[in-house]
Amino acid sequence: MKRTLIKQVLASTEPSDTLRVQGWVRTRRDAKGVSFLELNDGSCLSNLQVVVDPAVSVDLAAFTTGSAAEVEGRLVPSPAAGQAWELQATRLHLIGPADAGYPLQKKGHSLEFLRTIAHLRPRSNLFGAVFRTRSRLAHAGHQFFQERDFFYIHTPIITTSDCEGAGEMFRVTTLKGSLEGDPQADFFGRRAYLTVSGQLEAETFACALSNVYTFGPTFRAENSNTARHAAEFWMIEPEMAFCDLAEDMDLAEEFVRAMARYTLDHCAEDLKFFARFVDRGIEDRLRFVADRTFERIPYAEAIRILEQSGRAFEYPVQAGRNLQSEHERYLTEDHCQRPVTVFNYPREIKPFYMRRNDDGATVAAMDVLVPGIGEVIGGSQREERLDPLREAMAFHQLPEDDYAWYLDLRRFGTVPHAGFGLGFERLLMFLTGVGNIRDVIPFARTPGSADF
Amino acid sequence: MKRTLIKQVLASTEPSDTLRVQGWVRTRRDAKGVSFLELNDGSCLSNLQVVVDPAVSVDLAAFTTGSAAEVEGRLVPSPAAGQAWELQATRLHLIGPADAGYPLQKKGHSLEFLRTIAHLRPRSNLFGAVFRTRSRLAHAGHQFFQERDFFYIHTPIITTSDCEGAGEMFRVTTLKGSLEGDPQADFFGRRAYLTVSGQLEAETFACALSNVYTFGPTFRAENSNTARHAAEFWMIEPEMAFCDLAEDMDLAEEFVRAMARYTLDHCAEDLKFFARFVDRGIEDRLRFVADRTFERIPYAEAIRILEQSGRAFEYPVQAGRNLQSEHERYLTEDHCQRPVTVFNYPREIKPFYMRRNDDGATVAAMDVLVPGIGEVIGGSQREERLDPLREAMAFHQLPEDDYAWYLDLRRFGTVPHAGFGLGFERLLMFLTGVGNIRDVIPFARTPGSADF
Repeated sequence: MKRTLIKQVLASTEPSDTLRVQGWVRTRRDAKGVSFLELNDGSCLSNLQVVVDPAVSVDLAAFTTGSAAEVEGRLVPSPAAGQAWELQATRLHLIGPADAGYPLQKKGHSLEFLRTIAHLRPRSNLFGAVFRTRSRLAHAGHQFFQERDFFYIHTPIITTSDCEGAGEMFRVTTLKGSLEGDPQADFFGRRAYLTVSGQLEAETFACALSNVYTFGPTFRAENSNTARHAAEFWMIEPEMAFCDLAEDMDLAEEFVRAMARYTLDHCAEDLKFFARFVDRGIEDRLRFVADRTFERIPYAEAIRILEQSGRAFEYPVQAGRNLQSEHERYLTEDHCQRPVTVFNYPREIKPFYMRRNDDGATVAAMDVLVPGIGEVIGGSQREERLDPLREAMAFHQLPEDDYAWYLDLRRFGTVPHAGFGLGFERLLMFLTGVGNIRDVIPFARTPGSADF
Repeated sequence: MKRTLIKQVLASTEPSDTLRVQGWVRTRRDAKGVSFLELNDGSCLSNLQVVVDPAVSVDLAAFTTGSAAEVEGRLVPSPAAGQAWELQATRLHLIGPADAGYPLQKKGHSLEFLRTIAHLRPRSNLFGAVFRTRSRLAHAGHQFFQERDFFYIHTPIITTSDCEGAGEMFRVTTLKGSLEGDPQADFFGRRAYLTVSGQLEAETFACALSNVYTFGPTFRAENSNTARHAAEFWMIEPEMAFCDLAEDMDLAEEFVRAMARYTLDHCAEDLKFFARFVDRGIEDRLRFVADRTFERIPYAEAIRILEQSGRAFEYPVQAGRNLQSEHERYLTEDHCQRPVTVFNYPREIKPFYMRRNDDGATVAAMDVLVPGIGEVIGGSQREERLDPLREAMAFHQLPEDDYAWYLDLRRFGTVPHAGFGLGFERLLMFLTGVGNIRDVIPFARTPGSADF
């Protein structure tokens, strides 16, 4: 008999005489003349209640929390509250035992403790819900772009260029002794690094296929031990030819709204769990975001709002400087009380590839800020004019030789184009209410930590 | 007026009075009193023919091959053969010029030359087709698993464990001088590498969510300069709990068949191009694969077949050794003339995690071999029994301490489970007929080469 997933069992519309399920025992309760097993197979949050009467001859004591079991039985309407169905076991088989040393006994565990058993935590309610949601939203992201005729591009992970010019990159090497010797002796014949963004490479594809996106891992060797930073994280980076900043903001906002809508519509059971145990207001917030247009504020106005806020920020507000997380959150949570897109940033604080505005002082950049997180998307219209781009590279002290291929895009059939980068983990934090990036990544990589 | 993609224009069911398209000029042909522009925007293989009569006052000489243009006009049935529609321009605007230095002039180019301009080659017919197909098949892979209730897991790229025990890994570091000093001084406080497989981590998730898959980049620091090897490539790795080798082979074969079917159904225009210019037999081969069950042969029988083949192989056939590419191709191309799954390999030549068969000598491993490529999938049932696994680790000289978390899966609620790894680029080579892995990767990384 073929296995039925518990998700499908619980969605049954009628009873069944024979059914076979496999999963892990969450709890067992022995009452007079009957025992109840809560069985979970990870296909959904809910357990299936298995009712075992003494006629089923089996040593029930072995069916402990964490053990793996196979059950055959009859699916019947459950008399118990809160569940439509229960399985009356006709055969019970222990697949893999779990002794009292199993760390996920039925009791509350701190998130810190669960991080130390990242190989077992997906068996808990919270992390099952988080990683089912992560999977569904990753797929929803693909669907969003594929339906709109965007092509998915696998930009390289190992790179010899530094997109942001930020310098905080991991080196990739097959050298053994010294790193300072002749780079030609290394695997690629030169120094190589882990990418911080696929944007520059995605631009080459947008200038051929019109609309493209990346979805892959990116890396920062930043010594930041915060709840929002990881050394390895996944980014989604669409890039559109024949596109300006306004259309770029349209797409970014539409994407965030669509993901909020998708979570409400397709992750309802797990979302209810987040609402109950993680963030009480999460469902309302997602509905609010899904239904509303975002505010749009030029950077200069954002600075005025912050200056007039009367707030004592830890980092003082200063025109011409980057917004700090506390500033971003004031704008979206307090001033606007909805997602905000801030655009037209000072040239000095943004990378070389952003298109200079006619005012000469600002570039066509934008950041989407959401409540609870701050920046979740950063994007820009790219500088498609050869001379202004070269001038910007000189301004940012970048050697033209390293970017010859990038300049070629401006030499041959250049077009206005724009795109953005979305940190997938930050989006997940926003959509689930989970407060630490370590808890939305299967195995997080942070300073001093790369276990498993 | 909003832009219409050429893909949509060419799929029109009726004429249109006003249409706006944007793209790149492939060629211009000036005839008496009229000019023709072939415009391509990458949304599909076909160009849109733009007809420009002298009433449109514009300097046509600037509309050279490679230049970017915007056209407004009337869509009318085309009198020319081979195309249903043409666009009669009412307005023509040059967006970005391309002078005679543009490398992709209308003439044949060698694949070797095109690799040196990987930033421009997606504008060619061949590479447009390759990367549209790559995008569609990546999405098709996600759909295949999501429809079957598999969860997509982002296993870590940076790792401190060596799944295959093969040792050919890239080191990831923030150290500056020597690599030999105290590993605690490095970013993660220990030596870190780029992953060769997400399998071990995927197993932890299968033992929680039942059915999972990965789709991400993997790395080999192997000094192999062949048409089938790259240092960075994408793998799809499903992992199923409560699953044995037979079901694993079922899924692997179903996946290959489904991808062949998808290519025929959803990449028809690009596939026709491959059939015309790359591999004449490709469509027949895909139909053949999509419609047929695969052969299944135990390793021992495969050895007998090879020994009795009468072929003079470069590498002699030897029981107990790995099959070479030439052996694999003989089995699939000559002997069986269809895809073949070889299973039950000698224990000695396979990694520690594969489940030992009752014969004691073989493990529950399988490889799917396809014509023209050889191995495209490798998989196994995993050793879920704690003692045999520890024994296998000792046999392969692996320290248990490094795999404590992996052993935990066998301590707590262990279940039979199985999975496989599919090299996405090899699948693409098989489905497009493209013969070199460098030509199905946007920016290939190979020994001595990590440009762009």
